[in-house]
Amino acid sequence: MNAIAVLLAEGFEEGEAVLLVDFFRRLEQEVETLACGRAELEVVSYHGMAMRADALLSRREDRLYDAVFLPGGPNGARRLGADAAVVRFVRRHLEAGALVCPFCSAGAHVMAANSLLGDREYTCSGDSHTLYADGRYVDRKVVRSGNILTGKGLGVAFEYAGAMADALGLGEAAMRQLEHIYFGNIAVDFPGHPCIMRSS
Amino acid sequence: MNAIAVLLAEGFEEGEAVLLVDFFRRLEQEVETLACGRAELEVVSYHGMAMRADALLSRREDRLYDAVFLPGGPNGARRLGADAAVVRFVRRHLEAGALVCPFCSAGAHVMAANSLLGDREYTCSGDSHTLYADGRYVDRKVVRSGNILTGKGLGVAFEYAGAMADALGLGEAAMRQLEHIYFGNIAVDFPGHPCIMRSS
Repeated sequence: MNAIAVLLAEGFEEGEAVLLVDFFRRLEQEVETLACGRAELEVVSYHGMAMRADALLSRREDRLYDAVFLPGGPNGARRLGADAAVVRFVRRHLEAGALVCPFCSAGAHVMAANSLLGDREYTCSGDSHTLYADGRYVDRKVVRSGNILTGKGLGVAFEYAGAMADALGLGEAAMRQLEHIYFGNIAVDFPGHPCIMRSS
Repeated sequence: MNAIAVLLAEGFEEGEAVLLVDFFRRLEQEVETLACGRAELEVVSYHGMAMRADALLSRREDRLYDAVFLPGGPNGARRLGADAAVVRFVRRHLEAGALVCPFCSAGAHVMAANSLLGDREYTCSGDSHTLYADGRYVDRKVVRSGNILTGKGLGVAFEYAGAMADALGLGEAAMRQLEHIYFGNIAVDFPGHPCIMRSS
């Protein structure tokens, strides 16, 4: 079983975060949502939904997860990127070889903004990549480069969850789950992952 | 502007509910989440996420919305279907000609279970349709029959949101939003709604 941390700051894109949690709990993985930059568990999303996280990031600064997911949402991703504790947490996971999964604008506002990409390829939503020199932006739905997995945004959340599962060795279970929930668009344009590449 | 009620009972499918709220708030519609069968606003979802609803259903029993969305989740949908206040609320909206939107297992456990379909076609997830004699089940992603819009489940949530927007006169804005969030699978197999039928 993999342990997955989902980092939530005020303004997080709720559809992206909730779909990811939902999907990996369906796959019976341990998913923990962590409230960032605050002393209380409740975090309000991009479109005003109040959700209670499982724990505070400040109580998990020594734990190592198998994967870390960072949702977009313009303000949510900027808050994550400006939070020294988040950047420390992400850098520690990168260096330990865990899978780091910045989605949507988090690819730019968390990773590139803090020079965490180097010369790796990544994708993100909109034009936010133009704000930062770090990393090499490519316009694809999902991009894996080493242990960093980026994705464009909400509308590719299912493909991204499938790709993330595949990177964690859960590709076959992910395919079964995507079929179970009637998802019919499971072609993801990054190479070398045939169980996700299969299109229907 | 349309007013949309989203009914949440303990065990609701969080991805389905949150995507719907997210999408219609992106379209700048008024979306109100209503906690059902309880005296407090916090409702725990299918996969254990605690979310705070905007209001209690018991405080909205006289309000008429333009649309009512009922998410699935096996226990969430059964709870909605067994709640007399919910059934009264749905029946009142059906009779007033509002758009009634039972998604996933809610098509069976709320609508068919309470004989709210009559001879209308509908779809739902899995085999739950076999439990009830009401309605005529069809195996399609999204089915519109009069003012009832049903859909199969989580993996077609984007198509369903587009179809629901279209039924509310927001088809063009929905198409723009689906493109904005990089959704690339906007063919929905129900006829007569060309702006949603367009495939990419």
